[in-house]
Amino acid sequence: MTLRVAVAGASGYAGGEILRLLADHPEVELGVISAHTSAGRPLGEVQPHLAGQADKVLAETSAQSLGGHDVVFLALPHGQSAALAGELGEGTLVMDCGADFRLRRAADWERFYGTPHAGTWPYGLPELPGARAALKGASRVAVPGCYPTAVTLALYPAFAAGLVEPEAVVVAASGTSGAGRSVKPHLLGSEVMGSVSSYGVGGVHRHTPELTQNLSAVAGEAVTVSFTPTLVPMARGILATCSARVRPGVTEERIRAVHEAAYADEPFVRLLPPGRWPSTAAVLGSNSAQVQVTLDTDAGRLVAVSAIDNLTKGTAGGAVQSMNVALGLPEGLGLPKNGVAP
Amino acid sequence: MTLRVAVAGASGYAGGEILRLLADHPEVELGVISAHTSAGRPLGEVQPHLAGQADKVLAETSAQSLGGHDVVFLALPHGQSAALAGELGEGTLVMDCGADFRLRRAADWERFYGTPHAGTWPYGLPELPGARAALKGASRVAVPGCYPTAVTLALYPAFAAGLVEPEAVVVAASGTSGAGRSVKPHLLGSEVMGSVSSYGVGGVHRHTPELTQNLSAVAGEAVTVSFTPTLVPMARGILATCSARVRPGVTEERIRAVHEAAYADEPFVRLLPPGRWPSTAAVLGSNSAQVQVTLDTDAGRLVAVSAIDNLTKGTAGGAVQSMNVALGLPEGLGLPKNGVAP
Amino acid sequence: MTLRVAVAGASGYAGGEILRLLADHPEVELGVISAHTSAGRPLGEVQPHLAGQADKVLAETSAQSLGGHDVVFLALPHGQSAALAGELGEGTLVMDCGADFRLRRAADWERFYGTPHAGTWPYGLPELPGARAALKGASRVAVPGCYPTAVTLALYPAFAAGLVEPEAVVVAASGTSGAGRSVKPHLLGSEVMGSVSSYGVGGVHRHTPELTQNLSAVAGEAVTVSFTPTLVPMARGILATCSARVRPGVTEERIRAVHEAAYADEPFVRLLPPGRWPSTAAVLGSNSAQVQVTLDTDAGRLVAVSAIDNLTKGTAGGAVQSMNVALGLPEGLGLPKNGVAP
Amino acid sequence: MTLRVAVAGASGYAGGEILRLLADHPEVELGVISAHTSAGRPLGEVQPHLAGQADKVLAETSAQSLGGHDVVFLALPHGQSAALAGELGEGTLVMDCGADFRLRRAADWERFYGTPHAGTWPYGLPELPGARAALKGASRVAVPGCYPTAVTLALYPAFAAGLVEPEAVVVAASGTSGAGRSVKPHLLGSEVMGSVSSYGVGGVHRHTPELTQNLSAVAGEAVTVSFTPTLVPMARGILATCSARVRPGVTEERIRAVHEAAYADEPFVRLLPPGRWPSTAAVLGSNSAQVQVTLDTDAGRLVAVSAIDNLTKGTAGGAVQSMNVALGLPEGLGLPKNGVAP
Repeated sequence: MTLRVAVAGASGYAGGEILRLLADHPEVELGVISAHTSAGRPLGEVQPHLAGQADKVLAETSAQSLGGHDVVFLALPHGQSAALAGELGEGTLVMDCGADFRLRRAADWERFYGTPHAGTWPYGLPELPGARAALKGASRVAVPGCYPTAVTLALYPAFAAGLVEPEAVVVAASGTSGAGRSVKPHLLGSEVMGSVSSYGVGGVHRHTPELTQNLSAVAGEAVTVSFTPTLVPMARGILATCSARVRPGVTEERIRAVHEAAYADEPFVRLLPPGRWPSTAAVLGSNSAQVQVTLDTDAGRLVAVSAIDNLTKGTAGGAVQSMNVALGLPEGLGLPKNGVAP
Repeated sequence: MTLRVAVAGASGYAGGEILRLLADHPEVELGVISAHTSAGRPLGEVQPHLAGQADKVLAETSAQSLGGHDVVFLALPHGQSAALAGELGEGTLVMDCGADFRLRRAADWERFYGTPHAGTWPYGLPELPGARAALKGASRVAVPGCYPTAVTLALYPAFAAGLVEPEAVVVAASGTSGAGRSVKPHLLGSEVMGSVSSYGVGGVHRHTPELTQNLSAVAGEAVTVSFTPTLVPMARGILATCSARVRPGVTEERIRAVHEAAYADEPFVRLLPPGRWPSTAAVLGSNSAQVQVTLDTDAGRLVAVSAIDNLTKGTAGGAVQSMNVALGLPEGLGLPKNGVAP
Repeated sequence: MTLRVAVAGASGYAGGEILRLLADHPEVELGVISAHTSAGRPLGEVQPHLAGQADKVLAETSAQSLGGHDVVFLALPHGQSAALAGELGEGTLVMDCGADFRLRRAADWERFYGTPHAGTWPYGLPELPGARAALKGASRVAVPGCYPTAVTLALYPAFAAGLVEPEAVVVAASGTSGAGRSVKPHLLGSEVMGSVSSYGVGGVHRHTPELTQNLSAVAGEAVTVSFTPTLVPMARGILATCSARVRPGVTEERIRAVHEAAYADEPFVRLLPPGRWPSTAAVLGSNSAQVQVTLDTDAGRLVAVSAIDNLTKGTAGGAVQSMNVALGLPEGLGLPKNGVAP
Repeated sequence: MTLRVAVAGASGYAGGEILRLLADHPEVELGVISAHTSAGRPLGEVQPHLAGQADKVLAETSAQSLGGHDVVFLALPHGQSAALAGELGEGTLVMDCGADFRLRRAADWERFYGTPHAGTWPYGLPELPGARAALKGASRVAVPGCYPTAVTLALYPAFAAGLVEPEAVVVAASGTSGAGRSVKPHLLGSEVMGSVSSYGVGGVHRHTPELTQNLSAVAGEAVTVSFTPTLVPMARGILATCSARVRPGVTEERIRAVHEAAYADEPFVRLLPPGRWPSTAAVLGSNSAQVQVTLDTDAGRLVAVSAIDNLTKGTAGGAVQSMNVALGLPEGLGLPKNGVAP
């Protein structure tokens, strides 16, 4: 099977990463790549790292340009996917890397985004219980956010197994590419290098309802999450430090057993050997996640840490992985497991 | 008053920062500077940034070389301060930047350091209630650890005012200089740049009992702290993200009022205007701390964030500040308030 | 003497650094600080690292607001200084950190800037032969560019002593703050971190005529300079690697002697001991320059390297140093010699 | 054809990169991987980014362990390859990533390395004229050094076409991984971040004779090179800024035509469109090189700039490329063209 694949939003960071991965996917033939303000320019001017496709010219993003492909990846600002997707037939697999179709409750969407809710699509985190079955054969997939991917992989086994109380505390460090390619003063290199800062503190970050939704679903009860993102001086990577109060009688051994069972057969999640802790460098450019977990007996809390590349496993790689699942291809096709380090 | 001041451990990062600050202190005349393996070398070879003292030669660290000064700063590996301090008379003010005399409970020391407890000295965090009175006239001062400084400044007002339950969760990001100048593989630039990683997870970091001690003291009850340090790609700075469950009826307004009262008259702690969050770049090289706080109503938690330079306010600057208090000098003498940014 | 000092362009990187340094200058009382789009805002919002002046409000930059001060620092985009300076009386010392008055030949200005030449002011690099005499008592000073400062300090002794042929090759690495605070896509943290790139290659960078002018003046003949700037992943610092073919018979000993003589009495330039090479970290935040020089006998070239902080010695510190000279104050007043490292 | 491939020095940075690339090479089956002090440990402990081979155990490096493979990659400290290679039969293709067999003149080797010269092997830079013919069918290949790869790609076309005088000036910026994984104080993250520094100045860097050899060979006359390496705050990447005086009558058009001809059919070297300049981020993790060239008419010099990833095109990728050529495989097999950016 050779798939003809289009990518909308190819001038952005997520779009560029999708193109980088698709170049090594043996079943993909790249079709239209599109952008908005960069339409008409060769890709090499906009994404100089994509030497293999430097001469390919960016089309204008539209239902016309994107139509007629087997798969269309949408890497667009939130709120722009619904209209486009509506014009792409059910015969086209649409992978939406935006937030539009991730949330189940319209109230969550409206509170955090301020516009009417467009709907809910199958959720592209194959590692979640039941996710692969829901993705298989789907023609629409909501690709998870980068923070929710990292946090869910760190915490879902504990919640699914009932090890912890339904209140989590998450502090996540992210590289600057998570903010996209938009040009804002606080994202200047001079501001970012040598600095760590907080933003979106106090439950107001838009990924909060998504990770709450994921953990509540596996816990079978409402989970609250105190989520604080921080910006760190690197381009890529998320390290999520997550904790929750353990329920009475839960031991370190039980915690480890639960996580080993969750990830024993997962191709892209590596539970590290005891005593070793995740680092974002180890997963850079790969679709892998590193996870580690321990019990702080003094504080009575389970502490779980995960590391992903926000653009790969956290966006483009996760999208390709879910595309593979949706189409019945081998799940790891075209996806690197090894990080680019040091 | 001109003070004759010695610095032991002048070849390390903390020692170098003490020298940098003392060079601008109007009441200080630098006496002996000492080291161990670098003894006999000119400072300029070991600390090339200290151009003003490049030709001064490092003596061997000993009671002989350090004796006869008005003030001696000890920036030594933990466990080495007690013997030296014992040989320095009470007429000499000893500022210990190591951990040896910070903890009150011998059991804490023995559990985390594995050696007999040397004692407890007045604790050099002037911002803590009662601290200035205890420091004034002291001849021995235990300079706080860098993480405890950041965490205590973020959280003590809330605990002192009884706003939160006695269980805190802290995730702190630190630059690599916090690990000192010892040469370890995981601290190589190639490993650190582009990477965030966890270490000392699960309540095992040695600063845990110190910050627990500080918060328990102001709370008037035993506080547990789940503390996770992370290493981020920058040389200097700590950003501490701290949270605790609020007690019933505590409002955002009450939280803000408590913090404003705590820091209204503090020369080196700046509670940021609402909506602005700390960044480590803003305090680089300065003795200032930035603090911000909010209420996450969904999660029911107070979230407080602080930023300091681990080598300045977190070590050397804090030490000079406490020296000023101990000696009755103006507290801010010789200490920069402005950070070096961008 | 207490000087009342104004700073125009206080919202930019150069303006912020001037404010940081003036805060520690014992003869300076800060008067009006001004900006354009940020006028009306408190400084703390715009320059959060300047904790000591956080509440001071930015005025609109104008001859009215800046009038009546003893000294006015202009840190404005090039081309904006002449009109303002014309409205400030001769009784006010104007320190122009822009390029407007640095070049002697109108043709150079017009070729590189495309507008009519405004004139030439005394050049604020005190280390150049004759510069101090020209600066003393001046009421107008052209503060050098950051690259020309670094390159001139590395190379002028060799050209002044006739050691080398009049053709230099310079490759200089600069941190991103040299590009100012303007928001451009290629200056985003995501683009800059982990990357070194070239720009302004082939003799087209606007600092080229300035450094050519400096070297030609001391050489007493026309010097050509092949100048290539590169952008490196750090916020501050310039490392200039400079070389020129040695004239027959020039030895390593002679080269060293010339440089030792040039810098023996300079307070802010440190010729490193043989075998040690400059690093930008060693001068961060300080007004110091590090210089080293050697002879490559195989290639027949003198190689000189210098390191400065582009915002301090390269702009704001150099400006304060020249202000001190112009006003007859001790040259180093208020200026740090020690870098902030690590 | 499936090749059984061994890697010696698998615990280092070069060895790790070889393993990362081989994992995606469709004709390679990984055999023995070996190390010295890490022998006996699983790869995942030593190279945590190589998730795909985490459980493979490192053997001791020896002729016994490495024998019986179709291809053996040696990523060892210089001076250790000759003895090992001597015990591996001619039927095994040996790719030496060390310096031992790169230099043709024994005097060069002895001067820069101080030990007897081991010999000269076919040189693995396929882009050089005649190189592919020499590599095809070879059973021993000397993989070029990282700096020589970057410099030669930037400058060889100009020298081969006689455009420039035989004296080049090169200043190259390298990430820290070029120094390998050895633990030295100046390579600590705290020292490296935020700093650019020089080293090996004055013609003493060991890569000098290699790049001189390459340029002299294509020029057909002795070329001298003034080479200055600098260390910049990133883990990977080299940017080489190279220049030489142009011969009379050489125009920008002629320079461009020469470079276009040189690289029109090269799969891994991209001559950028006019006006665009190389950046190391664009080639990170890829086997691609970016090259750009211009004429500085004022200075009379051709300026050429190249960017590579020192570990990929500069070492491991170049080695795999040459292995492909030696074995008659498609030259680009298993090698990424796209960089990992941002």
